[in-house]
Amino acid sequence: MAEIRRILSVLGVTADVQAAPRQLEVAETESTFVGNALLKARAYAREFGEPALADDSGLCVAALNDLPGVLSARWAGREASDTKNVDLLLDQLSGLPSAKRDARFVCAVALVHPDGREFCAEGSVSGEIVDAPRGQNGFGYDPVFMPTGHEVTTAQMSEELKDSLSHRFHALKELAARGAFN
Amino acid sequence: MAEIRRILSVLGVTADVQAAPRQLEVAETESTFVGNALLKARAYAREFGEPALADDSGLCVAALNDLPGVLSARWAGREASDTKNVDLLLDQLSGLPSAKRDARFVCAVALVHPDGREFCAEGSVSGEIVDAPRGQNGFGYDPVFMPTGHEVTTAQMSEELKDSLSHRFHALKELAARGAFN
Repeated sequence: MAEIRRILSVLGVTADVQAAPRQLEVAETESTFVGNALLKARAYAREFGEPALADDSGLCVAALNDLPGVLSARWAGREASDTKNVDLLLDQLSGLPSAKRDARFVCAVALVHPDGREFCAEGSVSGEIVDAPRGQNGFGYDPVFMPTGHEVTTAQMSEELKDSLSHRFHALKELAARGAFN
Repeated sequence: MAEIRRILSVLGVTADVQAAPRQLEVAETESTFVGNALLKARAYAREFGEPALADDSGLCVAALNDLPGVLSARWAGREASDTKNVDLLLDQLSGLPSAKRDARFVCAVALVHPDGREFCAEGSVSGEIVDAPRGQNGFGYDPVFMPTGHEVTTAQMSEELKDSLSHRFHALKELAARGAFN
């Protein structure tokens, strides 16, 4: 939420983004990020009668045939912590040299209006998975993801730097460009 | 070893298959089953100066972009037990209906002779991943793999039935047909 607000502010989007009155149980049953983002935005727009913005994002690792993908948050199991997910990923990639550790962070965002208008967009950032966690910022796989052209992980970056290159930035920029917030 | 001997016997291959004098540490660094089987067979043939037969096999799940694949034995981590691997797989597939649980067991076998002749072959068996483990036979993912056309998992089958349809049977049959054992 904080990250989305910061990015929208940088993009000049003045929409007043608020957390939903309460969380809904929406099963993320689609096999794509966009599909799951749409599922969630539709459910919230229908339930609360307000425009609903939803995010679905994850890490796609080339050596794992683009997984964890939509399973990123529960890669090591439904109750898994970020640390467990990261540890399992590093274990599965152990022994692979840097050249075989390509990965992308992907973010899909969907905005659904109560009148039925739907917008969605996807953004990504390329990089590689490092050997061991580095840095304390961010969340999820940030400590092991080093964007191409940088020597630090996204968990070692300031919020401003991460926001300027992140998958979420690119997705929200595209969503704004499509007039979703108008 | 017992499974391979049984299958070769059914296939009429009279080669005297023995365990290697000792186990070698061969890093399975290839991204394909055949690649890893060849790595292992070459290492053993070179070390012991005898024809060496190696197997590399695993489970390819459609909804997981054909993973665990070559990571099958260490899907939940390098030290993971069969039970941990199976539990993680079931967790990752939770909520998916039967129609989206397609999977294949794949087996690659390689036979390398000390004179440099190399043979390899691959076999597979299609089926689906059931919701919960069933049966005590076999090993690995057998308790959750139900071959197409059957109502039981390979862990519920007799050795004879499993051998008659398994990925390993098809791979060894193909290897024999190529004259590897002559």
